Amino acid sequence: MKDISMMNILPIEELHTRVAEVVDLSQASAVLGWDQETMMPKKGARFRATQQATLQGLLHERFTQPRIGRLLSILEEPTSFNALSPTDQAMIKTTRRDYDRATKLPASLVRDLAMATTEGVEAWRIARRESRWEQFAPYLRRIVDLKRQEAACIGYKDVPYDALLDEYEPGATTAQLAELFTHLRSETVTLLRRIASTGRQPDRSVLEQEYDPAKQLAFTELVLRQMGFDFEAGRQDLSTHPFTTSFGPTDVRITTRVDDHDLQVALYASIHEGGHALYDQGLPVDLVRTGVGASVSLGIHESQSRLWENFIGRSLPFWQFVLPRLREIFPVQTGTATPEMFVGAVNRVDRSLIRVEADEVTYNLHIILRFEIERRLIGGEIDVDDLPALWNQRSQEYLGITPPNDRLGVLQDTHWASGLIGYFPTYSLGNLYAAQLWATLRREVPDLDERLAAGDFQIVLSWLRERIHQHGRIYQPAELIERATGEKPRPDYLIKYLNEKYGKIYGF
Amino acid sequence: MKDISMMNILPIEELHTRVAEVVDLSQASAVLGWDQETMMPKKGARFRATQQATLQGLLHERFTQPRIGRLLSILEEPTSFNALSPTDQAMIKTTRRDYDRATKLPASLVRDLAMATTEGVEAWRIARRESRWEQFAPYLRRIVDLKRQEAACIGYKDVPYDALLDEYEPGATTAQLAELFTHLRSETVTLLRRIASTGRQPDRSVLEQEYDPAKQLAFTELVLRQMGFDFEAGRQDLSTHPFTTSFGPTDVRITTRVDDHDLQVALYASIHEGGHALYDQGLPVDLVRTGVGASVSLGIHESQSRLWENFIGRSLPFWQFVLPRLREIFPVQTGTATPEMFVGAVNRVDRSLIRVEADEVTYNLHIILRFEIERRLIGGEIDVDDLPALWNQRSQEYLGITPPNDRLGVLQDTHWASGLIGYFPTYSLGNLYAAQLWATLRREVPDLDERLAAGDFQIVLSWLRERIHQHGRIYQPAELIERATGEKPRPDYLIKYLNEKYGKIYGF
Repeated sequence: MKDISMMNILPIEELHTRVAEVVDLSQASAVLGWDQETMMPKKGARFRATQQATLQGLLHERFTQPRIGRLLSILEEPTSFNALSPTDQAMIKTTRRDYDRATKLPASLVRDLAMATTEGVEAWRIARRESRWEQFAPYLRRIVDLKRQEAACIGYKDVPYDALLDEYEPGATTAQLAELFTHLRSETVTLLRRIASTGRQPDRSVLEQEYDPAKQLAFTELVLRQMGFDFEAGRQDLSTHPFTTSFGPTDVRITTRVDDHDLQVALYASIHEGGHALYDQGLPVDLVRTGVGASVSLGIHESQSRLWENFIGRSLPFWQFVLPRLREIFPVQTGTATPEMFVGAVNRVDRSLIRVEADEVTYNLHIILRFEIERRLIGGEIDVDDLPALWNQRSQEYLGITPPNDRLGVLQDTHWASGLIGYFPTYSLGNLYAAQLWATLRREVPDLDERLAAGDFQIVLSWLRERIHQHGRIYQPAELIERATGEKPRPDYLIKYLNEKYGKIYGF
Repeated sequence: MKDISMMNILPIEELHTRVAEVVDLSQASAVLGWDQETMMPKKGARFRATQQATLQGLLHERFTQPRIGRLLSILEEPTSFNALSPTDQAMIKTTRRDYDRATKLPASLVRDLAMATTEGVEAWRIARRESRWEQFAPYLRRIVDLKRQEAACIGYKDVPYDALLDEYEPGATTAQLAELFTHLRSETVTLLRRIASTGRQPDRSVLEQEYDPAKQLAFTELVLRQMGFDFEAGRQDLSTHPFTTSFGPTDVRITTRVDDHDLQVALYASIHEGGHALYDQGLPVDLVRTGVGASVSLGIHESQSRLWENFIGRSLPFWQFVLPRLREIFPVQTGTATPEMFVGAVNRVDRSLIRVEADEVTYNLHIILRFEIERRLIGGEIDVDDLPALWNQRSQEYLGITPPNDRLGVLQDTHWASGLIGYFPTYSLGNLYAAQLWATLRREVPDLDERLAAGDFQIVLSWLRERIHQHGRIYQPAELIERATGEKPRPDYLIKYLNEKYGKIYGF
C-alpha cells in the first residue's frame, strides 16, 4: 500500500497490484450491498450510505489515477505486449476498456448524472404512483440530455446509442441489435397470434395452492444443489427483489422471494438467480484480481439465468425429474398432477402489461418495444413528450393490448429514471444467446432430455463451464458465443425453440 | 474525493472530511468482519482476506498522510484551537492521539509484528494442542521483543508497559493498575477461601436440562428488548464465539451461542453482548464521523457488558422479573423453581483453571495473574522461560489450584500469541468500573431493586446513556468514571459488592 510507483518493479507487476486493489474494493462494496438488501436493520441505512459513497469514491479515484493510463500505454507497446502471457494481455485489454470509460467522463458530468438520476428516481416514484407522466417527463428529458453527453464523451462509430449499449454489452451495436430484434419481433407477434387463436389456456390451479414457505425454500435448495450450486461457495437468502451478487467465484450469493400461494414464484426466482450464480461460481478464480475473471456482459449473464430458468426449468424433463421430489415435500398439493400439467402451468402465455410478470414469449416484445423507443430517444428522432402515445401504440401493435394508464405502461420500469439506457436489450440478447447455446448443447448431447429427466444437470453445467464460464472477460460477448456455438449470434434458434415448445403446449 | 488540499476550504473542514473517510472505511471493514463470522460460506475466506487487507491498507495509508499531521498542527495552535467548538476540540484531541499512535511505528515494525503474530498464533495453536510450551516459547520471545520496540516508539513516562496499556485504556498506567489490582487480589483470595470454607454449592440442575435452541433464542430476544436493545438499529445472530460489532450507533450487531443442555450459555452471552451493544447504540450519532462518537476504551466497554451481565443479569430482581416469562416458554423445565434457585445456579463459584469459564469472583484472579506476568515480561524482569512455573505457582497461590499441564495453564489464551499485551487488565478494569457505576446508580435510585423486579430496565439504560454513552471519546476513561460517579476509579466498590452478594448466596 506504499507508493508502489517509487519501487523498482516491472510495469506489469505494478498494474497487477493496482488493478487487484480496485477489484478488492469493488468486492467489498458488493458485500455491503448484499448486507443492505438482506440483513441490515432499518436504521443502518444512515451510515451505509456514507460507507458506500466513500468506497465508491476511493474506487473511482484509485482506478482513474493517471499512473494506470501510463502503465497501460507502456504495456500496450507491441514489443512489451507481445512478450506478455495471454492472460496478462487480456488484463491489459479489459483494463484499457474500463479505464477509458472511467476517465472519459468529466467529473462534472458524473456528478450531474448522479444528481439527475437520484432526483429522477424520486420523481418517477411519485409519477408512477399517481400515473402522471408529465411529472416525470422533465426529469427524463434532463437524463436523456446527459446520457447524450455521456455518449459523446465515450465516443462511437455510428450512432450515440452505441456508446451506451457498449457499457452493458461490449461490442454490441444498434444496427446489429435492430436486425436481430426486427426478425424476432415479427416472428413472435405471429407466434403470439397463433397461441391466442387456439383459445386454449393451461390450468394453473396446481401452482396456486397453499405451499408452506419454509418447505418451498427447502425445495429450491434441493433444485439448486441438483443444478450444481456450491453452497460452500455461496448461500441463498430472502429479499424483496431477487438478485445475485458475487465477491469472487468462491462467494456468490443469491436471493429469492416466496409466495405462499404460488409455487412458481420462489422456484423460478431461485433457478434464475441460480443460473446467474453458476456463471459467477465458474469464473476463472486465478484471474479474479486481474479484472479478467469477471462476467463479460449483461447479455451473457442473462443467457445463463434464462437457460436454467426457461430452457431447463420450464421443460418436461425437468418436471419429470423434480416432481417426485416435490411430491415428497408437498404430497397433498401435488396429488395426481403429472409433469405435463406442471409444464403447461408454468408456461402459460398471457398478453400482459407488465414486463417483469411476462412469460417467455411476450417478454421479448416488452424489451423490443423499449429498445425501439430508447434508441430513437437518444438518436433525437423522438421527444420525451412522444413516449406515452408511442408506448401505447406499440403495445397494441406487438402485444395486442393497450395500457389503461401510464402507470401500467410507460411508467412501469425504473431503468430510465436510473439512467440505465441501453440496458434493456441485454435481457433479450440473453434469450437469444441462451437459445443458441441450448441448440448447440442439444446437438452435441443427443440424449440430453433423458439425462435431464434422470437429474443429470451436471452435463449442462460442465458444458457451460467449458464454453462460457471459464473464459471470464477474455473474449467479447459475440465472439464468445461464436466460439461456443460455431456461429455468430442469430435470432432463428430462439424463434424455432419458441415455436416448437409452444406448439406442443398449445397444440398446433 | 478529489484532492481536497487544493480546494479553498478551512483546515477544520478538511480535517472533518479526511477523518470521516477513515471512519467510513473502518465501518466498511467491520461489516466484512461481521459477515465473515456469521454469514460467509466456507470458501469465501479466500477473497475476504484480500478484501480486508486492501481496506486495512487503505485505511492506514489515508490516515497516516502527513497532511493530517499538518492540519492537526495548524488547528492545535491556541488561537485556532480556542475558536473551535467543544466537539471540534474533542476531534482534534482524539485524532492527534490516534494519528500519533498510527505514525510513530515504522512500517518495518508493523510488518514484523504482523508476521510474528501470524506465525505466533499458528505456533500457539499447535503448542496448546500438544501442551508443549517449548514449541511456543521462541515465538513469544520474538513477539515480546517487538512489543518492547513498539513501546519504545510510542513512548512512555514511567515503564514500557504503560505504552502498551494505553492502546486499550487511554491514560491508564501500570502503577495505577498495580495499586487497584493488589487490593482486589488479596480481598478476592480471602473471599474465595470463605466461600470454599462453607462447603456449600448451589444446585445447577435447573439450568442443565434440555432447552430448545429456537425457544432459547426467542427468550434472549425478549430479554434484549427489555434491556432496551433497538432491533431496528441492530440484530442478533449466531457465531462460535459471541461478539459485538458496530457500523455506527444505528447498526450494532451482536452474536450469541446456544447450548441446548445449558440455559446459562445463550442467556448470559446475549446479555453480555447486549450490554456492549447498548453502549454502541447510545454513542453520539452526530459525532460518529468525527471519530469522537466511538467507545472510549476497552475497560469502559467491558464495564457496560459486565454491569448488565453480572450486576443485573445475575441478580435476584432480574430473576424475579424474568422467571415468569421464562416459565411461559419452558413450563416443564422451570417447574417450581424459584428466582432464588436461579440466582444460586448462575452464581456458583468454582476454583477453575480456564479464564473464559470463570465465575464473577475468580475471574479477576485469572486476569491479575496475567497482568502481573505480562508487565514483568515487558519490563524485562522475567524471561519467557519463567512463565510456566510462574503461572502454576501463582495459580496455586491465588486460585488454590495448579494446572495439570500447560494446555490448561499458561497456553490457554490466544492474546499473547496475537500480540495483545496490555489487553487483559481491561477485563478487570471493566468489573471495577461496573461496580463503581452500580454503587452510584443504587445510591441515586434507592428503589432500584423494586424497579428491576418490575422489569423497569429503562432506568438503568437512561442513566448509563447520560453518564457514559453520550460522551463517546470526549473524556479519558478515568475522567469519565469520575464524572459519572464523583470519584476516581477505586477497588472497594467491587470488593464490597462481591462480599455482600456471595455472603448471601453462600450464607456467611
